[in-house]
Amino acid sequence: MSNNPYEIGLGKNEANFVALSPLSYIERSAYVYPDRTSVIHGSRTFTWKQTYERSRRLASALAQKGIGRGDTVAVMLPNVPAMVDVHFGVPMVGAVLNTLNTRLDAEAIAFMLAHGEAKVLITDPEFAAIIGPALEMLEGPKPLVIDALDPEYPGTDRLGEIEYEDFIAGGSPDYEWHLPADEWDAIALNYTSGTTGNPKGVVYHHRGAYLNAASNIISWGMPQHAVYLWTLPMFHCNGWCFPWTMAANAGVNVCLRKVDPALIFEMIRRYKVTHMCGAPIVYGMMINANEALRKGIEHKVSGLIAGAAPPAAIIEGAERMGFDITHVYGLTETYGPASVCAKHPAWDELPIDKRAERNGRQGVRYHMQEAITVLDTLSMEPVPADGEVMGEIMFRGNLVMKGYLKNEKATEEAFAGGWFHTGDLAVMHPDGYVKIKDRSKDVIISGGENISSLEVEEVLYRHPAVMTAAVVAKPDEKWGEVPAAYIEVKEGAEVSVEDIITHCRAHLARYKVPKHIEFCVLPKTSTGKIQKFALREQAKSASAIG
Amino acid sequence: MSNNPYEIGLGKNEANFVALSPLSYIERSAYVYPDRTSVIHGSRTFTWKQTYERSRRLASALAQKGIGRGDTVAVMLPNVPAMVDVHFGVPMVGAVLNTLNTRLDAEAIAFMLAHGEAKVLITDPEFAAIIGPALEMLEGPKPLVIDALDPEYPGTDRLGEIEYEDFIAGGSPDYEWHLPADEWDAIALNYTSGTTGNPKGVVYHHRGAYLNAASNIISWGMPQHAVYLWTLPMFHCNGWCFPWTMAANAGVNVCLRKVDPALIFEMIRRYKVTHMCGAPIVYGMMINANEALRKGIEHKVSGLIAGAAPPAAIIEGAERMGFDITHVYGLTETYGPASVCAKHPAWDELPIDKRAERNGRQGVRYHMQEAITVLDTLSMEPVPADGEVMGEIMFRGNLVMKGYLKNEKATEEAFAGGWFHTGDLAVMHPDGYVKIKDRSKDVIISGGENISSLEVEEVLYRHPAVMTAAVVAKPDEKWGEVPAAYIEVKEGAEVSVEDIITHCRAHLARYKVPKHIEFCVLPKTSTGKIQKFALREQAKSASAIG
Repeated sequence: MSNNPYEIGLGKNEANFVALSPLSYIERSAYVYPDRTSVIHGSRTFTWKQTYERSRRLASALAQKGIGRGDTVAVMLPNVPAMVDVHFGVPMVGAVLNTLNTRLDAEAIAFMLAHGEAKVLITDPEFAAIIGPALEMLEGPKPLVIDALDPEYPGTDRLGEIEYEDFIAGGSPDYEWHLPADEWDAIALNYTSGTTGNPKGVVYHHRGAYLNAASNIISWGMPQHAVYLWTLPMFHCNGWCFPWTMAANAGVNVCLRKVDPALIFEMIRRYKVTHMCGAPIVYGMMINANEALRKGIEHKVSGLIAGAAPPAAIIEGAERMGFDITHVYGLTETYGPASVCAKHPAWDELPIDKRAERNGRQGVRYHMQEAITVLDTLSMEPVPADGEVMGEIMFRGNLVMKGYLKNEKATEEAFAGGWFHTGDLAVMHPDGYVKIKDRSKDVIISGGENISSLEVEEVLYRHPAVMTAAVVAKPDEKWGEVPAAYIEVKEGAEVSVEDIITHCRAHLARYKVPKHIEFCVLPKTSTGKIQKFALREQAKSASAIG
Repeated sequence: MSNNPYEIGLGKNEANFVALSPLSYIERSAYVYPDRTSVIHGSRTFTWKQTYERSRRLASALAQKGIGRGDTVAVMLPNVPAMVDVHFGVPMVGAVLNTLNTRLDAEAIAFMLAHGEAKVLITDPEFAAIIGPALEMLEGPKPLVIDALDPEYPGTDRLGEIEYEDFIAGGSPDYEWHLPADEWDAIALNYTSGTTGNPKGVVYHHRGAYLNAASNIISWGMPQHAVYLWTLPMFHCNGWCFPWTMAANAGVNVCLRKVDPALIFEMIRRYKVTHMCGAPIVYGMMINANEALRKGIEHKVSGLIAGAAPPAAIIEGAERMGFDITHVYGLTETYGPASVCAKHPAWDELPIDKRAERNGRQGVRYHMQEAITVLDTLSMEPVPADGEVMGEIMFRGNLVMKGYLKNEKATEEAFAGGWFHTGDLAVMHPDGYVKIKDRSKDVIISGGENISSLEVEEVLYRHPAVMTAAVVAKPDEKWGEVPAAYIEVKEGAEVSVEDIITHCRAHLARYKVPKHIEFCVLPKTSTGKIQKFALREQAKSASAIG
């Protein structure tokens, strides 16, 4: 027996220990601020009392169907009120929420439904043409299908047995849910949009969801009762945990079915939106939209930007637009953002391009993540903080997934050496801030030299005609690989291959200048990431410039 | 074996799980904001890098003396830089910080040193006259005594073997500390200022300290880099966890050895203080101070008020002074504040006295506390939310202590029925907000009717001549007990016993009007609470008014 007096008679009990769970946040907001607005969608508005009641009805109705601890409930939903409900109602019965990527094809969806063993699927009519075939592809037992119709969407295609509002109407608003006995219990399942092989199912626990929801507030310095615009899809890393953050914050979720600059600016103006998140492409669309759309917006909007390494030009543009942009970084495996490019007052005195450069780094750990570092993958030693030597970004802490569902091998690999391996290559700057150089698979090795595709893209973005740019490796007999550039041009802009080459030669070492340049529409993933694997395929057969 | 797929191969490991500990906060601020100011005291200023280094030096020096997990390090310090250091340096070696109440007598201190088995004592020269005799009273082994001299204090009385700066100079600034393996490990020991019997040693764990430090930010809506004035003693519930909050916040600790309105206003003006905490008596002193002292202070200061049920007059006065006051409530056993009187915009439209009444309630649970409720002590059922029926305030959640050190009986009693019993009597208002009526032992039972001493005090405070008031039970042959009032009069004010009685009769039921009234200096505890037990003694022999 211990003779440490602090270990005797001082154990856990019902009074002094409860599992950390974001469910506690909605209970509090519904209790303290029952009449505050929780969700706005088109002409419908809900209060926190109502959203809490709807979540409890959902939980109750799910329980009636026998759904309980460890069961998977999948949803194929845009940013609509039901999508907020499910973030609470599903875990209230101990079930696991699997938010499906709404831009995937039937085959991928079918894989996820089968792999995740979804017992229930809640789906929006917009995706009937995907979900219908996906359900047919399922060989095993089919989930209970619930159609969530939306007055804001013209389609009413039904696939299921019951409509969402009818389903939850059958549940009790007073349903007595319980916190999980163990905060390590799964709360969500998020499939990575893996570019090769089958997607992996990332499992989140209640503890991590609780902590990241809080860290969003603390690391962003978010005041209470923020008005949050849903430009980020809620299916993506559970909207980076913001459905839970907004419940803690007792703020307003302004829903948005699709990312459209005219709509975005209208919502910002109408509801005095204070906060939003998005991939660089969202901000890019806003920056390049007609200025007239921004008329009448006088207040400051705080924006988190993430999802890919943001070109400095985007950060700069958002700032010029009057946005207060903070860059965060993370992966599906880290509950979304797990690092932040924390700002310093001294940066305010830098010229805007230098400031954007500073602000565009992946930065430092989130308050509630324990560590972000750049390690040499072989030795697992930190690289020198010189901004030069590349290593792999690794995370450690409570904002790292439980692991990959039914994939112990991938889980072990991801956690090898006691760190989560991101696969992103980066340098450590002298001030301790991490800066991504590339995804390890995106590095171009030309004549034995590493070329960071991001570095070349950064230069391309500085050309005034370039809207979006992606650089990938193109196989080359002489050099092994050479850089190939794919460019979307801004509306109305004119530019030639020669212009681009001249621009690159002025800013890059000769061997880094793209040897193939193509103007096109870039293939993108659902979250706005450019699908480099598709471009790499394309590049194989492209002709090179001498 | 479980057939829940979410439980297979998804366990904890070094990459995805670390103990929650406020030590993580200082590491982050020292890393991200090395040059930001951490502590200001007189002419000395420290940065977060320095405070972190000093804490590591302290940890290293303690480790050299063999101090480790489960050992107690006691400190008798005012709000000075060393007091910030110890909140990190002590737990870095796994030891437990026991902050002694600097206003106690030698006997009480001796009891605590012996009961807590302190291995080290760090002490300020101001308390040499108390600590010296206390050490002599110790029968068992004596702690290693370290004198923390302070250039801001004229005295240099030494009791120990080594001076604090010399002691930490012997430690390494690079000391490799570790998070506790278990977040349930003790981090602090705080003796309650029990009014009867021996003090009880309340034990905090790393998890609770981490969560309450975060909850202070979230529940108060505290922006990053706040400038925090130490009007609250850091020895009191570890300054309600604010040394850890300020590390998470990367803010500034403005130290203050003593609560003096002239000094407070000077600090607020000089350092543009944004936040402070204190007992009602602190705000009372500020409100009643010469207005000239406030000259030149244009900015808003956010203040938390707690420590006793604040008279509405104090909240009102602070608001008139331009402060944004938020009322919090808690006990030593709940890491300080574990409930907050969360505000509503509708209250802003109320007249100031009504608003103060709303804001003076104990309110609703802190974000990271799970529940506050008012239960009937016998049935353990909630009282109706009618603002009338009294019950006992109970807490549940992660902001409740591990228990009382070496006192299993008191621990079991405190946690009976799965709730922490506060001993405070209260009602539940229809909006779900808790309002204290009295400490259970402070209720006056007169002719079988309960009289809330607080209700009578509230009325007394409304008299313009009353500075401070306390009402206690006086034994009475006829009624069992009657209320007796003890009053401190404002400087320069004139008032008679008859004036007070007339005032009370105008606002109170006849049986609640004090039967004994005395003008005097009230006996107070170190944290500004009035010592009602002393007044009760006094009341026994006082004469009653017909």
